[in-house]
Amino acid sequence: MHAADIITKKRNGEELSENEIAWLIQAYTDDKLPDYQMAAWLMAVFFRGMTDRETAALTMAMANSGEQVDLSQVPGIKVDKHSTGGVADTTTLVLAPLVAAAGVPVAKMSGRGLGFTGGTIDKLEAIPGFKATLERQEFIANLQQYGIAVTGQSAAIAPADGKLYSLRDVTATVESIPLIASSIMSKKIASGADKIVLDVKVGNGAFMKTKADAVTLAEAMVTIGRLVGRETVAILTNMDQPLGMAIGNSLEVKEAIELLSGRGTAALKEVCLELGSQMLVLGGQAKTPADGRRFLKNLIDNRQALAKFGEFITAQQGDAAILQDTGKLPQAGFVQKVTAPCQGYITAVNAAQIGYAAMRLGAGREYKGQTIDVAAGIQMQCRLGQYVSCGQPLAIIYTNDKSKLEQADEILQQAIEIKEQPAVIPPLIIGLVDKNGFHNRLE
Amino acid sequence: MHAADIITKKRNGEELSENEIAWLIQAYTDDKLPDYQMAAWLMAVFFRGMTDRETAALTMAMANSGEQVDLSQVPGIKVDKHSTGGVADTTTLVLAPLVAAAGVPVAKMSGRGLGFTGGTIDKLEAIPGFKATLERQEFIANLQQYGIAVTGQSAAIAPADGKLYSLRDVTATVESIPLIASSIMSKKIASGADKIVLDVKVGNGAFMKTKADAVTLAEAMVTIGRLVGRETVAILTNMDQPLGMAIGNSLEVKEAIELLSGRGTAALKEVCLELGSQMLVLGGQAKTPADGRRFLKNLIDNRQALAKFGEFITAQQGDAAILQDTGKLPQAGFVQKVTAPCQGYITAVNAAQIGYAAMRLGAGREYKGQTIDVAAGIQMQCRLGQYVSCGQPLAIIYTNDKSKLEQADEILQQAIEIKEQPAVIPPLIIGLVDKNGFHNRLE
Repeated sequence: MHAADIITKKRNGEELSENEIAWLIQAYTDDKLPDYQMAAWLMAVFFRGMTDRETAALTMAMANSGEQVDLSQVPGIKVDKHSTGGVADTTTLVLAPLVAAAGVPVAKMSGRGLGFTGGTIDKLEAIPGFKATLERQEFIANLQQYGIAVTGQSAAIAPADGKLYSLRDVTATVESIPLIASSIMSKKIASGADKIVLDVKVGNGAFMKTKADAVTLAEAMVTIGRLVGRETVAILTNMDQPLGMAIGNSLEVKEAIELLSGRGTAALKEVCLELGSQMLVLGGQAKTPADGRRFLKNLIDNRQALAKFGEFITAQQGDAAILQDTGKLPQAGFVQKVTAPCQGYITAVNAAQIGYAAMRLGAGREYKGQTIDVAAGIQMQCRLGQYVSCGQPLAIIYTNDKSKLEQADEILQQAIEIKEQPAVIPPLIIGLVDKNGFHNRLE
Repeated sequence: MHAADIITKKRNGEELSENEIAWLIQAYTDDKLPDYQMAAWLMAVFFRGMTDRETAALTMAMANSGEQVDLSQVPGIKVDKHSTGGVADTTTLVLAPLVAAAGVPVAKMSGRGLGFTGGTIDKLEAIPGFKATLERQEFIANLQQYGIAVTGQSAAIAPADGKLYSLRDVTATVESIPLIASSIMSKKIASGADKIVLDVKVGNGAFMKTKADAVTLAEAMVTIGRLVGRETVAILTNMDQPLGMAIGNSLEVKEAIELLSGRGTAALKEVCLELGSQMLVLGGQAKTPADGRRFLKNLIDNRQALAKFGEFITAQQGDAAILQDTGKLPQAGFVQKVTAPCQGYITAVNAAQIGYAAMRLGAGREYKGQTIDVAAGIQMQCRLGQYVSCGQPLAIIYTNDKSKLEQADEILQQAIEIKEQPAVIPPLIIGLVDKNGFHNRLE
C-alpha cells in the first residue's frame, strides 16, 4: 500500500477499507509513515469526515497498536466510564467506589490531567500514601479481591492514539468528531472495558459548546461501541457552571468523601446517580436505571460506598483516615474569599474561566510534566440562580503561592455574573444516546 | 506568529494576511516550520482554496524565498513564456530565437524535465557542445549582445517552491489551482520576467484534462500577474494529440530547425505564432497580435529567426552546423517503424501514452537525476483525422536500447486509434485569458 494513495482516496471522499486504515495506523505507530503524510491525511479527515465503518476501523487500529489489557480473570462485566472533561467534575472519584460497592468491577486506567485540574490519578495522589501506579498483576489481584483498582494509563495502551494526538494538537486537526470519538474509544477498548458509559459535557466549560455537537460526538462513540461489540451509552450533561463545588485535587477528594457520606452538591450527586445507574444496568446489577438509582442511593445512605472507598484507598496504600478527617488531606497555605460586589441573582458562572483560574493557582497543568499543587484550587460558594447579598462569599481560593491570589480573585469576579433579575437555569441532564439514538430528557 | 493558528485560520475558511503567508513560507524555507504543519496547511488549502490576494501573496513569498534575478541592465521588456507541459511541445526551441529576432529579449531559465521528454535544457544539450549552465554575468552579457540566453534554473530561484513541491508530491496536494498557479508564477517572477505569456495545455496529454479546469488555472495565473504588476496573458491550446511530430530531445531540435527553415508541422507553427505574437505585443514590438503574427512569419520566411538560432547556439558554444546538417545531431542506433494494422481514419492519438512510450525509450526521466538518451524518441507520421492505408507508417521509434523497441511498438499501436468513420477534430487554439478574462476563440 502507498500512503499517498490512501491520502488521495480520503481527500476525494471515498471510503477507506479496514485494511487501509489498519495499515496506515500500524505504519505510523512503527515510525514507517512520516508525520507529514499523517498530517495531510488528518486534515483530509477533518474536511471529509469518516463513515461509521471507517471510524470503527480507526478505533480498533489504534486499540490494537499496543497492549490490550486482558481482564478475563476478573469475574463480571467490566463497565468503564469516561468523561469528555469539565470543571469540578469529581464523578469518577465518587462513582468508582459507589459502583464497585454495587458489584460492578471497576478497572480504571486513568491519565494525568492537562488543563483545568489534574486527572483522576492526580486527584487520588492528593491522598497521603496513595500509590497510583500498579503493576498489571497487582491491578488484577486488587480487582479480584476488592472489585476496584485504579492505575495510571500505561504508555503501552493505544500508543498510536498518543502519537496521533500530539500531531493533531499542532496541525489544527483536533476538532474532528471521528478523530475525537475514536481516540476516546480506542483507549477504553484497549484498557479491557466490556461496556462503556460516557459523560459528554455540553456548555461553556466543556469541549462541546452546543447540544448539537455533543449529540454528534455521543452518537459517533455509541456507534463505534455497537460496531466493535462494546455496548456504549452516553449521557449528555450540562457544563455551564462547575458541576460540583470543588475545583482542585485535594478539594475534590474532600467533596467525594462528603458525597459518599450523604452530603455534598446536589448536581454532582445527580450526575453520579445518572451515570452510575447506567453502569449498573450495563453491568447486569440492575434491571432498569430506576432500580440502579435506588440501589446506589441506598449504598450512599448506608455508607457501604464510603466503606468501599476506604477499602480501595487502603488497598493502594493510601491513608483511609482521611474519610473520617479530611483535614489530613494536603491543605493550602493561603486561603482567600471572593465576595459579591453587589446583591442580586447569579446569572452566569463561567466554568471555563473558573477552571483556568484553578489551573493558574497550581491545581492543573499548563504543559506536560508540570508539577501540580494538590492543595490548590477553588471552593465555590454559589450556584446559578442563587440570590446573594453584597459581600457574601462567592468562592474561596486555595493556594500555596501567595502571588497567585490576586489574579484568581480577578478572574473569579469576572466569571461570576450577578444581575437584578434571575436567568433561566439550563437543565443538568440533557439527554441520553444509546443504540436506539438520542433521547431528550426534556421530552 | 504561530503556525497552528495560521493552519486553523485557513482550515476555517478565513483569509490569511500577506504577512501570515510570508511568515509561513519564510519559516518553511528556513527549516523552522516542520513538514507536518506545512502538509496540514497544504491540505487545508486544497479544500478551502485561496483568494486572489492570498494566491498573489503566496507567489511573492515563494519568489522572495531565494535569489531574484535582476535583468535591469538588459534593455527592453523581458517577456517570459511558460508551458504547463505537453507532448511534442517544441515551442520554446522555436519561440526563443524567433521572438529574440523580433527584438524582444529572451532571458530563459529552464528546468530539467521529469516525465515524457527532457526540459528545454535537456533538449538544447542534444546540440553538440552546447553549454546550458551560464554564470549570471555571462547570462546577462549574452542577453545584452544577442538578445537571447538560456540557462538551467538555479536552485537559488524560488527554493520555497521546490521544497513545497516535493512535499505536495507525497501528501496528495498537487491538484490545487492556487498552489499550481503560484508555483509557476513564482519561478517566472524570480527569474526576472517583466511580463509573461502562458501556454495552458488542455487534453489527454496535459495536466488539465478539461477546458473548465484550464480556464480556472489560466485565470488564476493572469490574476496573480495583475496583482503583482507582471502583466500575464494565457493561451489555451489543445493537447489531445502530440503538438508537433517529434517527441524526444534530438528529434525536437531537428523539428525546431525544420520549422525555422519554413517547413515543419502546421499545428506547432500555429501555436508558436499565437504565443509569439502575444509576446511581441507585451514586449512592445507589435501593436496587435495580427501585426505580431505577420512580423514573425516574415522572420521565418527570410530565415532571420534561423540565423538568430545559430547565433544563440554559437554563443553558448554549441555547433551551429546542425542548422545546415541535422545529421550532426545525436542519432539513435535502432530505428523501427510502427505501421497501421488496417486502413481508416485516425480518430484518436493518445498523447499521454505516446509521451510515456518516449520516456520508456529513454527520452525522458522516470526519476530525478536519471540519464537521458537524447537520441531516443518517436517521430510521428500521422495526425488526427488523417486517412491511412494498411501498412502505412504511423510513427518511427528511435532508441539506443534495442530491448525497448517492442514495448514502444505495443504502446503506440494502442495509442493510435483507426476507425472507418472520421471523428471530430478538437480546435487547436481554444481561447485566451487576459486581464479582461476568458475569450473563446470559437466565438
